[in-house]
Parts: sequence; structure tokens; C-alpha cells
Amino acid sequence: MTEETGESAGLGADDDLNLRADRLRRAQAELARHGVDALIVGASSDLRYLTGHVGHPSERLSVLVLPRTGDPVYVVPRLEAPTLAGRGDLLDLRSWEETQDPAALVASVVGSAPGATLAVGDQLWSAFLLRLQAAMPGARWVEGGAVLRPLRVVKDGREIELMREAAARTDDAWLEFVSRPLAGQTERQALARLLDLTHARGLEPGFGACGSGPHAASPHHDAGDRTIGVGDAVVFDWGGRLDGYFSDVTRTVHVGEPGDEFRQVYAAVLAANQAALDGVHPGVAAEAIDLAARDVIDEAGYGAHFIHRVGHGLGLDVHEEPYLVSGNTEPLLPGMVFSDEPGIYLEGRFGVRIEDAVLCTDDGGERLNLASRELTVVE
Amino acid sequence: MTEETGESAGLGADDDLNLRADRLRRAQAELARHGVDALIVGASSDLRYLTGHVGHPSERLSVLVLPRTGDPVYVVPRLEAPTLAGRGDLLDLRSWEETQDPAALVASVVGSAPGATLAVGDQLWSAFLLRLQAAMPGARWVEGGAVLRPLRVVKDGREIELMREAAARTDDAWLEFVSRPLAGQTERQALARLLDLTHARGLEPGFGACGSGPHAASPHHDAGDRTIGVGDAVVFDWGGRLDGYFSDVTRTVHVGEPGDEFRQVYAAVLAANQAALDGVHPGVAAEAIDLAARDVIDEAGYGAHFIHRVGHGLGLDVHEEPYLVSGNTEPLLPGMVFSDEPGIYLEGRFGVRIEDAVLCTDDGGERLNLASRELTVVE
Repeated sequence: MTEETGESAGLGADDDLNLRADRLRRAQAELARHGVDALIVGASSDLRYLTGHVGHPSERLSVLVLPRTGDPVYVVPRLEAPTLAGRGDLLDLRSWEETQDPAALVASVVGSAPGATLAVGDQLWSAFLLRLQAAMPGARWVEGGAVLRPLRVVKDGREIELMREAAARTDDAWLEFVSRPLAGQTERQALARLLDLTHARGLEPGFGACGSGPHAASPHHDAGDRTIGVGDAVVFDWGGRLDGYFSDVTRTVHVGEPGDEFRQVYAAVLAANQAALDGVHPGVAAEAIDLAARDVIDEAGYGAHFIHRVGHGLGLDVHEEPYLVSGNTEPLLPGMVFSDEPGIYLEGRFGVRIEDAVLCTDDGGERLNLASRELTVVE
Repeated sequence: MTEETGESAGLGADDDLNLRADRLRRAQAELARHGVDALIVGASSDLRYLTGHVGHPSERLSVLVLPRTGDPVYVVPRLEAPTLAGRGDLLDLRSWEETQDPAALVASVVGSAPGATLAVGDQLWSAFLLRLQAAMPGARWVEGGAVLRPLRVVKDGREIELMREAAARTDDAWLEFVSRPLAGQTERQALARLLDLTHARGLEPGFGACGSGPHAASPHHDAGDRTIGVGDAVVFDWGGRLDGYFSDVTRTVHVGEPGDEFRQVYAAVLAANQAALDGVHPGVAAEAIDLAARDVIDEAGYGAHFIHRVGHGLGLDVHEEPYLVSGNTEPLLPGMVFSDEPGIYLEGRFGVRIEDAVLCTDDGGERLNLASRELTVVE
């Protein structure tokens, strides 16, 4: 898509505007259901979802104001207004000059009575929320994510097709990547090659991490200058974006033949990944999927080393609802897409994680990533 | 620098920790001066400035809590804790498990009495601020940016050297870029080549925009599929990062010989850029620099078409204090670095912007970008 028009890939301008208008109406219904008078959303995946406008967070306040009833308004710095030209049929634009106070303009657009309940997009910067709170002192503020959750958490057919395609291209990049030796490259070099292969398949940049040897035991290790050598487990966790929608996959390989302990750990993680997948059905609580994987790893004796939830929703954000974590009793619904990514991390030694994106269908879980999960030994 | 250690390029581990410890102490002095009891900062340039830790904003709360007196504490999801290992001498780590409530943990670390004044980093997500406000209901909340401004706004010698070097490499990329024809390429293709040349000089990805023909009249146009042709003005606005510090430069070229009107507009913008530069001296109000450029463009008859402030501070953020805008009476100080970027935008026709990064020295303004500002005609 192009920033200028906000159009989505594969949708004509009219179809795209109809899609966004429908989402805005559904969001208004959620506002009514939650007793919220207006929603204020800045540049974020929420904004992109609702309007098609991508935008960039910056120090200039630029927000959609969606009242419970009536027309959506976009408050925009004048110099950004041309980038919203294609949204003119969808949004009433109110632009502000460099010397004006945009928080006051938002307050006048909201027109809130004292005691109004206002929702603010989860990712709006705090500095803006503080200014809005000061400009509308009587209001009660709630998290916009909770209001939009029912919309964003269930993907429609087009969203699913984009994510299926993004996953397939990411898998294809992996297939080419593991056909070549790893030993002698740094984590950074290996990751750069994997990301290049991913982008070469038409995905926009997403994210990437590579941890080798003891670094593989740090789930959020990025990629450093450590040289990968024989005897290392190497964890790759990466993804790209297709029309904004993320892929997110993790594979762990071993350089040279692994010993028995690595094989045991790998087998436990793979079994946990499969158990989580098998547990996916509409109506099942999100936390049950976490527990299904955790039971397998506990049983294998590594429960203390599975130090994170088993998964997170995936879509326009790489982490979004639903979170598959103990305490989340929300039921799974058909159309939800989330990661299934158990891991075992032995500090100072090695780690293993296996992650697929999974779609909840009427019949159960469907892996969107089909790259082999079997233990892969590389040179 | 590597994420694992948080070390800065060219600084040893000990020197880096000393630098950060000094900044944390100076920030505490600012807290005292502002009557603030504690500062809460998530992944952002503020965090990087204070601690060297880069981090990534995510749905997991991960924040520095800096009390007015006493030791800084870092509240971190357990699975991210290993990425802070190198900061252990600087920060007291408190990690939380996936099923814990991190806002409650922050509240216990802050230990605030009702009526406490707490500052929150400008870029922390609103969802987190709302949860922190709920967890500390008696507190008064203020913008962290205002507290940290006195520190970040004046660059030290090492920061200036990084920004001078980042600017020089960006200029060098431009020199190679304009040696080749533009006509026939799309905006996206031309920008990709310019960014490749910039990254090839060792700069990390920053940002980039290219607007051609009528698109050049939209100051925040990104880059689209329009093919650049003879008769177009083309505006390139881009930058990269060196150890986190941004370059930010804009040049406007003309494809084929321009007509008189373009020459007049270009001359007015160049004169305005020079007038702003000439106006830079310690003690001068930030808004006076904006006015200096605006006077020149008003005089040339294009005042209504210079629709943005003349500049913004530059550093670990691409837009930061000081903002050179009408109404900002804060005095310039030696060590401030900011953009000087007047522009004229004729809607539907063409636009011109010329931007350098400028350092305020004891003696006046020094351009960090030395790429030619003269009218450049390309094929």
C-alpha cells in the first residue's frame, strides 16, 4: 500500500473505504457497549486498522477522534494533512498550525462534559495523554485496547490470507537459509542473511533475533558479535510484514551433531509446541493452551526453565491480544491468530524455542508456518 | 554498541558506566529542582541516554524508576533481564514473572505517598500510564521530558563528535547520489538508493522521504510510486544513526533546467536557511531563529507557503528539544544541535526545502552538514 492513499493491497479505493467505514461503525458499537463516549487514537496499528492511515508517532499530536455517535474526526498538524487526502471521504479533517495547542483542539472536538468516559489508544505517548487529561480535567480515562479488542482479535478472511501468505514466504526464506552452513558467521551476519532472504520475498521489514550457544538461553537476546561454532544451538526468531500484517516464527538448529541432553530438551519443546496446537479449539480458554505446553515441559523436568507464556496474538502488531498466559480465561474464537512458542532456557548453556503462528478454526488449530519443526543439524 | 552490554562505541565498559552514573545523578538533581519525587522511563531515547540500554517498547512493562534520592531501579520482565546484565552495577534489577502485575511492582518500588509528584517518560505508552495512575491513585503526574530537557538539550563533546560524523557520512552519501541521473526512477527507487548509500557508510537505518513534482509540496510525503521526470523538483529528507545519534538533512534538486519561478523560490529558501544560521548565538531565543527565516520568505512573497517551524532539536531522537518555533522563548545554549530547514510549498505544483543540522557554539551557528546548498540540476 502507499502512504498517500491508505489503500490496502488487493483492495480498490472504494472497497478499502467501505472496509474502514465498517470497522469505524463496529468500533462505535463497542464504545456504546463499554459506556465510552469517545476514542482517541494516534499513529499505531489501531489507527491503521480503523482508517488505513499508517502515520508515524512524533512530537506533533495527530489523532483520530471517534465519538460514540456521529462522524469520526482526524486532528492533524497542517503539514501532515496532505498525507490524509485519500481519507477525506472517511474522516473529517481538522488541522492545526504550529503555534496552536492541539490538545485544546482535541478537547473542542470531543466536546466532553465533565464525567465523560474517554478511551485512549494503548500506544499513544504518555506526554499526549497528560496534555489531554489537563485539557479535559473532568473526564475518566480508560484503555482503548480493551475497547478495540473484540474487533482486532478476530481476523477476517482477507487478514487471514495476508498472514498465511506472510508465513509461507517466511518459511520459504528459512528453507533457503538452512541449506547453507552457519559455523564461522557471527549472529549478526547470520541474522542479516535470513532477513535479506525474507525481504527478498516481498515482505516489509519486521524484526529479528539470533542467539547462539549460551546466548540462546536468553529469550530476548537480539543478535551480537559472537561467532557461531560447532556445538552451538542457535535460535532464530524473526518475521516480516505483508500490508502491515506480521509473520513471526522461531526455529532452533544445532551446529554439528548434538548430544543427548540437547536432543531431550528439543524433543520436550517440540512436544509442547504440538500439545499447544492440539489444544486449540473455539471456546477453550487462552490460558489452557499455555498450560497444555507447560504440562509437557514440566513432565520432562524442565518446568523451571520455561520462563515465558506460550504465545501472543499476531496481526498488525507483532504482540497483541489474545495473550496465551496463565490467568487469561478469555475463550478462543475462530479467526484468532497467535503464536505457539514454548521454550526451555538453560542459563549459561543453551536454549531451544519452536514457534509457529496458529489460526483458530472451527475445527481446531491450523499452523500457518509449515517449515519443518524436526531437529535440524547444520554445519 | 551491542544490546547485551549497553556500551557505547568508543567507550570502554567502565567509562560508559561512569558516564551513565553521572547522567543519572544529574537527572536526580533535576528531579529535586522540579519538585518531582521519581521519574519512570520505558524503552525510549531517554532510557538509552540515562542507562545505555536500548530496549524495545512492547506490551510488557519494562521501566527505569529513578527516585529523587537513592539508587535507580529497573523493573523488567524476567525474560528480558539477561539483556540488562551489563547494567548490573548501575541499576538494581527487579524482575517480574508473566503472571505478576508489573504496575503494582512499580508502585512498590516508587513507594509513593499520596500527593507525590511523579514524572513519566514522554514516550511511555498511555496504557502503561493509565495502569500506573490506577496503581498510585494519589499521585500527581508530570511530563518526564520537561525534567530531562536540561540534560538532553545540551550535547557533550562525545555526542557532538558522533553527530558531526553522522552528518559527514550522510553528506558523503549525497555527493555520490547526485552524481547519477534521477529521471525514470520512482520516488521509492531513488530513496532506496540514497538510503543504501547512507547505510553503506556505516550508519544504522534512520528515516527517509522523497517527494517529486507536486508531491514535493507535501512536507511529510514519504515516497511513492510516482516516476520522477524532467521538470520535477525533488525533495530528499533523510538521515541515519551513529551509536543512536541521528543525522537529518534535506536537499532539493531540479531535474532538467528549472524556470524562473523555481529559481526564485529556491533562492528565497536558501537565503532563509542562511538567515536562520546567521541568527544562531547563545542567549538568542529559539523563536528568533524561526522568525529570521520567516522574514526572508515573507519578504520574497511566499510567507503563506512556509507552513512549518524552521527547526527541531536533533540527537537520540530525530525530533527533540529545542523546537525553533514561534512562542518558544527559551534561549539557545552552546552545545545545542538543531535543524535549520525552511521550506516553501506551492500546492499541486512543487516545493523546496533545504535543511542542515546546526550546532550552537560560543561564537554562533556551525553547520554540521556541509553538502552544497547551491541549486543542483540533475538529469
